[in-house]
Amino acid sequence: MRLSSYSHKGQDSYGIVRGDGIVDLKKRVGNKYPDLLSILRADKLEEIVTPLSNTEADFEVNDIIFNRPVTFPEKIFCIGVNYANRNEEYKDDSELPNYPSVFVRTPDSLVGHENKIVRPPESPQLDYEGEIGLVIGKSGRRIKKEDVWDHLAGFTVINEGTIRDWLRHAKFNVTQGKNFAASGGIGPYMVTRDEVEDISNLSLETRVNGEVRQKDVVSNMIFGIDYIVPYLSTFMELKPGDIIATGTPPGAGTYFDPPKWLVPGDLVEVEVARVGILRNEVMDENVS
Amino acid sequence: MRLSSYSHKGQDSYGIVRGDGIVDLKKRVGNKYPDLLSILRADKLEEIVTPLSNTEADFEVNDIIFNRPVTFPEKIFCIGVNYANRNEEYKDDSELPNYPSVFVRTPDSLVGHENKIVRPPESPQLDYEGEIGLVIGKSGRRIKKEDVWDHLAGFTVINEGTIRDWLRHAKFNVTQGKNFAASGGIGPYMVTRDEVEDISNLSLETRVNGEVRQKDVVSNMIFGIDYIVPYLSTFMELKPGDIIATGTPPGAGTYFDPPKWLVPGDLVEVEVARVGILRNEVMDENVS
Repeated sequence: MRLSSYSHKGQDSYGIVRGDGIVDLKKRVGNKYPDLLSILRADKLEEIVTPLSNTEADFEVNDIIFNRPVTFPEKIFCIGVNYANRNEEYKDDSELPNYPSVFVRTPDSLVGHENKIVRPPESPQLDYEGEIGLVIGKSGRRIKKEDVWDHLAGFTVINEGTIRDWLRHAKFNVTQGKNFAASGGIGPYMVTRDEVEDISNLSLETRVNGEVRQKDVVSNMIFGIDYIVPYLSTFMELKPGDIIATGTPPGAGTYFDPPKWLVPGDLVEVEVARVGILRNEVMDENVS
Repeated sequence: MRLSSYSHKGQDSYGIVRGDGIVDLKKRVGNKYPDLLSILRADKLEEIVTPLSNTEADFEVNDIIFNRPVTFPEKIFCIGVNYANRNEEYKDDSELPNYPSVFVRTPDSLVGHENKIVRPPESPQLDYEGEIGLVIGKSGRRIKKEDVWDHLAGFTVINEGTIRDWLRHAKFNVTQGKNFAASGGIGPYMVTRDEVEDISNLSLETRVNGEVRQKDVVSNMIFGIDYIVPYLSTFMELKPGDIIATGTPPGAGTYFDPPKWLVPGDLVEVEVARVGILRNEVMDENVS
């Protein structure tokens, strides 16, 4: 199933995407489960959502405005520098890292599918980073490698957009450059894990105005999904609806000479096989 | 007013702390405002809570288990290296930074007042960092220096506890060492801003088993509150209930020779004049 959150005629809702149509779930189970996060927390995907997956659509995908699949995850963890060739891009002669670099994004730093990504007036260095996102389905601490699949609800696509010259504003941490409002995107849906049989062979591609900029496969990750989930859950509990952005392959705009920053009107597409195509146009922020 | 969130006889609630007593707010306005966050989001502190501030207490502080004052803030931003002498502790000959270091904590990394702080089996390097916390009351983006006070709901005390050897696990970012579950504390209350007339002269003191380890005043911050709030809101919207940990003075355990790590049974107290005393005992994690 493909599950999206969206606004329809001004009302926040969520539902199942079936081709060009949407089966609205809020109308059916919204009293008890007002959003996708509450379904995940109650562990009711299979019991409540799956039986509705062949229902006739209520309206068309064209009639909705996509929101983040989980609109307000408690946590969005991101893995930095996670494809073998990517580490070389840093040109600091460092060896492969022993542990993944981890940072946090806030929900509002990501917009839904087909919403505009925003270039702020503070910087012209808006960049894309295509990634596969994990959506946690079942809580866990110190999750074992062999249990990772059991803790995933599904997958999504992330453009982990970045304001490059704000990444190292300070001595440590990339927080600022990763948290500009609406600087990245996520969606269109969470695809439930049953639709993705073998995550390791999935391909990932990022295009800007149709030009391929990033192209890789999940199996090239330095730290695979069966490492990342146990690692993150070593220090804290992963909970339903939590998002993990698994890191981006080589080819972000900053590594071209000269760099290829995104400009207003650019169309960024991130495609992950079996998971979806996330599409966002770039606009300049309207600062009054 | 001093506003706390807590559990009373197994029920989550929130209220006004009056001396040894609690005026329960959930019982009075909980249908519409189930928690402190919803009061802050609706901007109803003055209209709804202030008129109840002289009400007779419903039960005693001794009868509650403190939770985080805002139990699930959307964002918890933390400022690193923010007292003049602290930068020197790093001994890397760097000059004062141009911009503050910023990282993010997740809610579960902090426990409420008088709950136990947890030393995980992964490391013996549990450390304290006493800080003043800001609680945002009014949303804002690119907040001006002169408007900062208007965006604050109040203040709280934070022990921004750290697992030192997990701070630099990777190339960048301190996320891991700052996000071990229950590694720090926050509370006991949010003190509304009217109780703190001049924040800059407030003193901060951290004690371990009664021994003073950190002692400083807010005016020694490199980046003051009227800088931090505008800076953070440059890249994203600060919203009601968001927490900002403003950075810690010199004297954390790691800077002693040999380092003074926290061990089970240690009592850590962080005291900020007019804001409160946050008290947490240390325990070893019970890993089954």
